Amino acid sequence: MVKSKVFLYNKKFEGLPKESDFKLVEENVPALKDGEFLAEAAYLSVDPYMRAYAVGLPTGIPMIGGQVAKVIESKNSKFPVGSYVHGQFGWRTHTVDNGATVNMMPTYVLPDFGSLPPSLGVGILGMPGNTAYFGFLELCQPKDGETVVVSGAAGAVGSIVGQIAKIKGCKVIGIAGSEEKGKWLVDELGFDHFINYKTQDIEAMLKKLAPKGVDCYFDNVGGETTDKVMLNMNTFGRISMCGAISGYNGAPAKIVQFPIVQKQLKVEGFIVTRWADRWMEGIEQLSKWIKEGKLKYRETVTDGFENMPKAFIDMLKGGNTGKAVVKA
Amino acid sequence: MVKSKVFLYNKKFEGLPKESDFKLVEENVPALKDGEFLAEAAYLSVDPYMRAYAVGLPTGIPMIGGQVAKVIESKNSKFPVGSYVHGQFGWRTHTVDNGATVNMMPTYVLPDFGSLPPSLGVGILGMPGNTAYFGFLELCQPKDGETVVVSGAAGAVGSIVGQIAKIKGCKVIGIAGSEEKGKWLVDELGFDHFINYKTQDIEAMLKKLAPKGVDCYFDNVGGETTDKVMLNMNTFGRISMCGAISGYNGAPAKIVQFPIVQKQLKVEGFIVTRWADRWMEGIEQLSKWIKEGKLKYRETVTDGFENMPKAFIDMLKGGNTGKAVVKA
Repeated sequence: MVKSKVFLYNKKFEGLPKESDFKLVEENVPALKDGEFLAEAAYLSVDPYMRAYAVGLPTGIPMIGGQVAKVIESKNSKFPVGSYVHGQFGWRTHTVDNGATVNMMPTYVLPDFGSLPPSLGVGILGMPGNTAYFGFLELCQPKDGETVVVSGAAGAVGSIVGQIAKIKGCKVIGIAGSEEKGKWLVDELGFDHFINYKTQDIEAMLKKLAPKGVDCYFDNVGGETTDKVMLNMNTFGRISMCGAISGYNGAPAKIVQFPIVQKQLKVEGFIVTRWADRWMEGIEQLSKWIKEGKLKYRETVTDGFENMPKAFIDMLKGGNTGKAVVKA
Repeated sequence: MVKSKVFLYNKKFEGLPKESDFKLVEENVPALKDGEFLAEAAYLSVDPYMRAYAVGLPTGIPMIGGQVAKVIESKNSKFPVGSYVHGQFGWRTHTVDNGATVNMMPTYVLPDFGSLPPSLGVGILGMPGNTAYFGFLELCQPKDGETVVVSGAAGAVGSIVGQIAKIKGCKVIGIAGSEEKGKWLVDELGFDHFINYKTQDIEAMLKKLAPKGVDCYFDNVGGETTDKVMLNMNTFGRISMCGAISGYNGAPAKIVQFPIVQKQLKVEGFIVTRWADRWMEGIEQLSKWIKEGKLKYRETVTDGFENMPKAFIDMLKGGNTGKAVVKA
């Protein structure tokens, strides 16, 4: 009988999660019924949203998350053996699914990535990619020549947002936490400027780098960073609020409200699954841009399923550049 | 020679403004040139926005504000003697204007109010009325049967927003600071419910009064009140952010950011002058609703120009019900 390794969400996170907040267990995998398939994890995702949403969950359940898995047994012709699927299966090595249960979003067979690796199914050609694509283009509605600021710019989502903004003819300023990340953003990804929030004064830098003001802000971070960007925004500026990671491990991120009134800003929060019906449109476009050389990506890969907690904690500390992935 | 009394903004506001922050002076009014007219203040407005915007102004200038004034001398045929005009003339009894200078918005002759008093030109048939009309309808896009929450509900703007929401078929919950105000909202204006933020738990009350969740929130107050409303909002809820008076006299109002992401809220700040080109549309509709008995108003009138600071401070403390006005 096949066994699955599973990481349980074992203790409520307080502050930065600890490895001891998780518990590794083994489960027997049941025999397949008609319509079901068995998938073996290939690449598992660790993302900031997991920290934010876990606090609302009971402990003792498998930790939440998406993965790219390979179908190794199937009684469902839509999910043939050998195909790669994306599913919100949680932190587990083996999953029985029927492809019909919607958990955040439906399980789907990855479209043909051509020569690109299947790991991108949890990255630039999956949820983070579509988060950047729809969350930025739909909510910020960037126009040619506008100035765009991205926080968490070297992360899985931020690094794609900045590149899409460049494709759309915008001036792009990324905010991140190390010189190494900044170098990658400017030298390799084509960002116009980089602000190191750990060593530089964001407000003074924005005044200098965006003298005409900021039109669009894609916010992954929240809190004081967002306050400082808002002070430099133009009237009718648009903010796409993707996350607020600065508050996930401590006091919740707060923002000063009055600039929203005074500058008549439009602030919109989102969860990418609202564009579930346009999912493949995003993946096709992103894939096309990669093949045209307009879009680059980097993965920070951790080896071994048993290292999921470590990879997750490291990502929350900003240890990754681009997408943090665990190779099972 | 005509003299004008003028209140100067004399000391930077710190905390709640004091009467000694203002200085009453007299100025000579110059003779009219061609194209100019002389207007004598009839009703002056005191509004929360003045507190918020004054902090960005230099001291020593006339305090900012709008008024309804009567033209008493004119060399401009568009502003004939005897007509009432609305202008952002500041806190002064006599003003020479040419009707062409735009200060926040152009000076205009009040449209025919019929039997309604000209004081409404600084109230329900002026800036506060249009703030409610456009700020609520355009940004919240309320739908029949939805649940609407208004903070600062017994104020000049909030009391109109709630009534417009009722006209549009919504369930309306007002948040204000006294039982007397609440009684007025429910018994006279037709609000469905009232929450006294000074004596009741907003969150628990909303759970009870809005069991299907809140769809639209018109925010005059900000800070903790807004946090509590957001926790009870439905996915894709809309927030029209008109002001944040809770922070005007002390630490700036802050809001917790994550519910905006998690509930995918659309938050939009505004200044009513963005609808300057549709100004008369708002006034006509509001006037029609008053005449049809669908819209009620109340004014808290202070007598005497010299009492402007007192009226202003009293309004900031929540002493008014409906529109706070000073009769010159």
